[in-house]
Amino acid sequence: MSPRATKKKTTRKTASKRRKMVTDATDRHTIGCIDSTASTLYQRILRKGKPELKSPVRSLSNVHFDPKVGYLEIGKSRKVRTLTVNTVKSFAQTLKMMHLSKEMIGEDTFATKREAYYVSKNWDEARFDEQSESDTVMDDIEAMFSLDGVSREQLRFYPEEHGGAVAGKLVVVDRDPVSGKPIDIDCTKFGTGAYTIPHSVEHLEFKTRAKFILAIETGGMFQRLQSHGFWDSANCIIVSMGGVPTRATRRFIRLLADARKIPVYAFVDCDPYGISNIYRTLKVGSGNAAHLNKFFCVPQARFLGVTPADIEDYELPTHPLLDVDVKRAKDALKNDPFFKHSKPWRKAIEQLLKMGVRAEQQALAKWGLNYVIEEYLPAKLSASKAFLP
Amino acid sequence: MSPRATKKKTTRKTASKRRKMVTDATDRHTIGCIDSTASTLYQRILRKGKPELKSPVRSLSNVHFDPKVGYLEIGKSRKVRTLTVNTVKSFAQTLKMMHLSKEMIGEDTFATKREAYYVSKNWDEARFDEQSESDTVMDDIEAMFSLDGVSREQLRFYPEEHGGAVAGKLVVVDRDPVSGKPIDIDCTKFGTGAYTIPHSVEHLEFKTRAKFILAIETGGMFQRLQSHGFWDSANCIIVSMGGVPTRATRRFIRLLADARKIPVYAFVDCDPYGISNIYRTLKVGSGNAAHLNKFFCVPQARFLGVTPADIEDYELPTHPLLDVDVKRAKDALKNDPFFKHSKPWRKAIEQLLKMGVRAEQQALAKWGLNYVIEEYLPAKLSASKAFLP
Repeated sequence: MSPRATKKKTTRKTASKRRKMVTDATDRHTIGCIDSTASTLYQRILRKGKPELKSPVRSLSNVHFDPKVGYLEIGKSRKVRTLTVNTVKSFAQTLKMMHLSKEMIGEDTFATKREAYYVSKNWDEARFDEQSESDTVMDDIEAMFSLDGVSREQLRFYPEEHGGAVAGKLVVVDRDPVSGKPIDIDCTKFGTGAYTIPHSVEHLEFKTRAKFILAIETGGMFQRLQSHGFWDSANCIIVSMGGVPTRATRRFIRLLADARKIPVYAFVDCDPYGISNIYRTLKVGSGNAAHLNKFFCVPQARFLGVTPADIEDYELPTHPLLDVDVKRAKDALKNDPFFKHSKPWRKAIEQLLKMGVRAEQQALAKWGLNYVIEEYLPAKLSASKAFLP
Repeated sequence: MSPRATKKKTTRKTASKRRKMVTDATDRHTIGCIDSTASTLYQRILRKGKPELKSPVRSLSNVHFDPKVGYLEIGKSRKVRTLTVNTVKSFAQTLKMMHLSKEMIGEDTFATKREAYYVSKNWDEARFDEQSESDTVMDDIEAMFSLDGVSREQLRFYPEEHGGAVAGKLVVVDRDPVSGKPIDIDCTKFGTGAYTIPHSVEHLEFKTRAKFILAIETGGMFQRLQSHGFWDSANCIIVSMGGVPTRATRRFIRLLADARKIPVYAFVDCDPYGISNIYRTLKVGSGNAAHLNKFFCVPQARFLGVTPADIEDYELPTHPLLDVDVKRAKDALKNDPFFKHSKPWRKAIEQLLKMGVRAEQQALAKWGLNYVIEEYLPAKLSASKAFLP
């Protein structure tokens, strides 16, 4: 067996079999950004200058929230890495990684973080010893190119995790991976099953007349709404987030909501995790990776429930808030720019702290398994203006 | 707002809107088992005897492995719970839970463990205080009815987690949840996306001429095979397990492989977790819940790779085995009936321990991102008789 001998051939064969998944304009822009970064470096070397790479400073001090923008934005501080004796290896690795990205666009393929690490095993001296090193370089590249409006998925670095399950009044337009022909995927035709959002969604298009998108925390609740055709009677699209939504899920909801101008409602547990982790991440993104938020957050999202007021109105069974819940809620009030800016949210979180309890979305089952479908959701949806922002 | 007032109505409305998802014969059998258990108890009470419930002993001492059967089987030891002053509450809860199950079959709905716990909040004195208590009662009922060949899903207790992603040469026949009409779901028509296996799969049927099912450990590898149309050239069905496969994924693969007599090949990391947790659970089930294995394991599964021999043959990048890996491998050799029965597996695990390293399936990317599609899988598949059992 001689795997080495067949390596070159492999790449070529596969490339020739496939069509572009992303519009050429997007790919041309991405390649243009890679080329211009590289050529600026090269020119600088020719002029005997010190080559450097600029990326946004990724710390909370460089993050701000403008309610008009609607998500946590990265600020204007930049970090400059200059090529020196000490940085030569990571500098070379960054350029090799950019080269890999360009190669993947040309061959219409992609790599996960882990795969990119293994690919580097053939980079001789520039190979990575640990995946944590290649992850950092990829994060740097992602931050660097985010300044040009290019996402990591456009660079063809795909997340390991796919997106959540989707069902309802939506046709997703994808393309056949081999022939490149458009494929209509009708999300009303999955029976009790569902559509899985792919790892990268940049190339998808959407046909829908749905009135809203319902983003659901748990798989169990999604299955209930799916199995009882809730999306049919409510004329909507349901998405299972499965906890904090993955990149692909957030990007999918964002692209769909933008393209078709549909409101997005979140339906999660009433606890500090559901509010300040799941919902906050969906809507405004995260502070630690603020350079991504312009791609991944869903600023149009609003909070359907379960609200602290619902716990009382619906006499829900509760559990006491744990120390970690109290800490999370207090952190949100004190440090989170999104909650700090929102009076209704401050009031709701303070109410929750005062009540000292939390309730799960499935607690509605106390009133009958399908009470959520027949009573709770219709009642809430008839007053959607009252949703928390 | 008065949720209480609307509760009864809710259940009725929903029930009337839906058709049966499971063939009536299956439901009749399930209801028959519930009824006969209850009526035996009742007769015993009338005759002033002590009512009792029998279920299999769920400990490793009551588990055995017969290679001809192909999975870890529960033995013949039974545990008898008798109604006494001390057991009256849990006895009542068990009967209430059986009643809920019968009610759900009639109304064609289902409950997750968590929902069943919340439903009990209206059971007055028989209500559960903690979900762990209702989980135990549900596990007991599951074990009890497994003796009659009835699974938890047939009792309408559904897992919280759905199954993995599926793509390839397969049409899944489901039914529209509202109208009950059959729906053909063509898994070749998902572009870069995929089909999500529902929480319960008992009612599904399958049309396929695929040559095999490939069960894949990671979402990243699944996406690669899906995006490059591997299932098309290899004429197969690909399933993403996402680590240890969920109940729904295992049951789906089992039903599909049985119904269409298709071989199942596992493609996982070469490490003790991939071998003795993921693959072992898929193929022979688990020792702790042996009463389930007859429903959930896939005895026809075989191990395509990555094998210890592959690490050397393909010169894969490796990581050293951690202490936890070594412990897991030694446990498998010493205590696991499946590995103890299999000479080829004992040899393979001993080889891995001797090499002292592990390799991930994505390590094949060292030879090019699509080397796995163009070279590795075709080479392995051309010698499928050599797969580990």
